[in-house]
Amino acid sequence: MDPNEFKDFSKEMTDFIVQYLENIRERRVLPIVQPGYMKPLVPDEAPQYPEAWQNIMNDIERVIMPGVTHWHSPKFHAYFPTGQSYPAIVADMLSGAIACIGFTWIASPACTELEVIMLDWLGKMIELPKEFLACGDGNGGGVIQGTASEATLVALLGAKVKKIKQIKELHSEWTDNEIVGKLVAYGSLQAHSSVERAGLLGGIQFRLLETDGKHRLRGETFATAIRVDKEQGLIPFYVVVTLGTTSSCTFDRLDEIGPICNSEKIWLHVDAAYAGSAFICPEFRYLMNGIERADSFNFNPHKWMLVNFDCSPLWLKEPTYIINAFNVDPLYLKHDLQGCVPDYRHWQIPLGRRFRALKLWFVLRLYGIENLQKYIRIHVALAHEFEEMVLSDPRFEIVEEVILGLVCFRLKGTNELNEALLKRINGAGNIHLVPSKIQSNFFLRLAICSRFTESKDIEYSWKEIKLRAEELLDGQSLSK
Amino acid sequence: MDPNEFKDFSKEMTDFIVQYLENIRERRVLPIVQPGYMKPLVPDEAPQYPEAWQNIMNDIERVIMPGVTHWHSPKFHAYFPTGQSYPAIVADMLSGAIACIGFTWIASPACTELEVIMLDWLGKMIELPKEFLACGDGNGGGVIQGTASEATLVALLGAKVKKIKQIKELHSEWTDNEIVGKLVAYGSLQAHSSVERAGLLGGIQFRLLETDGKHRLRGETFATAIRVDKEQGLIPFYVVVTLGTTSSCTFDRLDEIGPICNSEKIWLHVDAAYAGSAFICPEFRYLMNGIERADSFNFNPHKWMLVNFDCSPLWLKEPTYIINAFNVDPLYLKHDLQGCVPDYRHWQIPLGRRFRALKLWFVLRLYGIENLQKYIRIHVALAHEFEEMVLSDPRFEIVEEVILGLVCFRLKGTNELNEALLKRINGAGNIHLVPSKIQSNFFLRLAICSRFTESKDIEYSWKEIKLRAEELLDGQSLSK
Repeated sequence: MDPNEFKDFSKEMTDFIVQYLENIRERRVLPIVQPGYMKPLVPDEAPQYPEAWQNIMNDIERVIMPGVTHWHSPKFHAYFPTGQSYPAIVADMLSGAIACIGFTWIASPACTELEVIMLDWLGKMIELPKEFLACGDGNGGGVIQGTASEATLVALLGAKVKKIKQIKELHSEWTDNEIVGKLVAYGSLQAHSSVERAGLLGGIQFRLLETDGKHRLRGETFATAIRVDKEQGLIPFYVVVTLGTTSSCTFDRLDEIGPICNSEKIWLHVDAAYAGSAFICPEFRYLMNGIERADSFNFNPHKWMLVNFDCSPLWLKEPTYIINAFNVDPLYLKHDLQGCVPDYRHWQIPLGRRFRALKLWFVLRLYGIENLQKYIRIHVALAHEFEEMVLSDPRFEIVEEVILGLVCFRLKGTNELNEALLKRINGAGNIHLVPSKIQSNFFLRLAICSRFTESKDIEYSWKEIKLRAEELLDGQSLSK
Repeated sequence: MDPNEFKDFSKEMTDFIVQYLENIRERRVLPIVQPGYMKPLVPDEAPQYPEAWQNIMNDIERVIMPGVTHWHSPKFHAYFPTGQSYPAIVADMLSGAIACIGFTWIASPACTELEVIMLDWLGKMIELPKEFLACGDGNGGGVIQGTASEATLVALLGAKVKKIKQIKELHSEWTDNEIVGKLVAYGSLQAHSSVERAGLLGGIQFRLLETDGKHRLRGETFATAIRVDKEQGLIPFYVVVTLGTTSSCTFDRLDEIGPICNSEKIWLHVDAAYAGSAFICPEFRYLMNGIERADSFNFNPHKWMLVNFDCSPLWLKEPTYIINAFNVDPLYLKHDLQGCVPDYRHWQIPLGRRFRALKLWFVLRLYGIENLQKYIRIHVALAHEFEEMVLSDPRFEIVEEVILGLVCFRLKGTNELNEALLKRINGAGNIHLVPSKIQSNFFLRLAICSRFTESKDIEYSWKEIKLRAEELLDGQSLSK
């Protein structure tokens, strides 16, 4: 493809993107295709000779769009939001053109340096304690991971190395494997599935602890679990505190758990994947009270801060343990300045890494803190609007306090009734929700996800939910 | 940012990209900045109010470019190539606009389905045995991982689960931890650092085995290692065979190792991260002889097939073990069609995933197999041109057979002499190389990396190397 064709192609794609996003509301949010839908639409093999780019443009609506779930539609309320914005798309173009692999500082100094600076900018925006920042006095610093799952795993592996080292100082005769067999990590029963998965991947026992009446992990529960495990000769070493659970956006009691971690020498990892973006607003920072006790903190600007996936910053007070966990140092990756600059390859599971800090730079500058705060506040206000609508209808109930942009609700009645309601809503495909279940209570989750969402969209979603509920309830009374 | 601003910004960025790439040869390939160079160039904090996008455009040359190592310059010969092309950049724009997270089929069916089809296209292009393909008769299939490091780790974790299950059938009284303590994995001493790292991350013993005179892992060495370990009560379960090592692009004897793996029930993972792209040319397929014995195969189109990072396909004959290793299944991720379509979240370490198959689709269609083959062949021919130049100069020697696009060479003489040569070359910064060392023999690696490289660039690089060698040798003879 020659440069002029690229210019034409890029322009055409830009126009398509604008047309797609600005009119995304008009599309059916959930596709109606069946598994295998795409196979008959494309050849069985790659073409021998080049095609015209216009063919690809034509195939977007024919092949791709029928199978797209439109995450950026105001009618999409499933999971949690995923970030997307025009500045981030343009930043990725530049990242794709420079296309450096930033595994060491020398492999492209700008890639490392911008990342260090952006993670300081971001840390300051949420008032993260200075110990986590590269510009602080300590050893702290941040790194962009791909996902919160990786951040949880990376922190766990660091904690594991740290604890093995501590134990060996006391029991030099114990093998690594003996120690690993005794290690135990904790999270709440409401923690994200990736937390339990980190335990599986890291090859250590993970205990998911009971939560209180508001579905928060409490200090007392945690303290009891540690005591019981220690009595059995086990070694508590890692806990994940979730700020804003996926199930219902509840907040573990970080303020209670932190002091226990510090006195018991347990690595405290804070997973604020979704909620973390809200901490750019001072009024939501009370939700991270106790953060100064943590060893690592992670949130996803690629969820709720308009940065495209993947961008999951992880801050560490003491990156050394992570670096040691991963440090394999072949000659072809050595360079003269090793040790005086971060080599991010030691901070993550993959070796290679894209120039992802550009997305943060573009988004932070082109929105400004003010507009990003406004964005969060609008979403939270829209969630409360929806909450009011639900509360105004005596057939429905709210099942969890609405704190940020997620509303958990259900029809008063059985789980089966609510399962039927969800099926009907997603079957109609005008809006998209996913469910959750806490302690045998099945409910629906409505997340505010799109940067295009306005009050009129919330009204539309609520009308759609009421309509499907009425169909269901009418059908039930008829069949009686 | 409103849609019209986005259009203007995108156009300006497109023009910048063309100007940057088409003239990349003119830039100093290696930056001269010192650690911390960027800090004084940017503010300490994110801006409160939005800036104009023109400011960012101006800052690219002022802030970013001085610290960029130009991986796509024909003067860049370090590491291995990393992919980049105009079609891939445009594909990423579309991916950024759709911005779906494809963790399950229903989360965006097109994202999963195009990936399944693209991995079949690609598998057919390299004549991968049908058992690895989704369109084959078995359970096989491919998935795009972020990096070869992740592919190696994912395969290792699958192998671990499989072996634990096998052992438990024989010794139901053994705990997982007891079994894990006995597991042992293998690779060659020339395997990539990420292979050893996978062992660290997976918490199992990893043995790096001696290679033969041509730096290849041989069947006999492997068989001996297994025997010794089994005699000590250990359980061999996983081996990584490298096709195209990073140090010197040598090829382990897959044909010898495969049969041993099959009879000993050891998971055979083939890492062809760099070399795999060459297998689209029939004349290089002999290098993967024995592939039918493997359990998993991985290569990086994001290295040598013009697809931007990250795109590291992994094919598995039996994905079940990987899926089981990672399967944690919360309600909010369940859907009605589970089981009859791949949910790629179970095939990888992160939960979230971008729509990366678009890059493959765009590149394969807009280049066509023919041009991709031509691209590989040109690079291999350029490597041989350079090899000829080195051979024509009696002061130099070639240290490894040139098979693909990497030439390993050195000045005849001591390691110190060659270290000094490399320092001089990279210090001048006109071209960029990294070294390697095999069995105490230090040498220089020249990889053909850029899609812009022509014969005149190879001549330039050779002239530069000769010049620095002459400076060095003259200096030496003067100081005598």
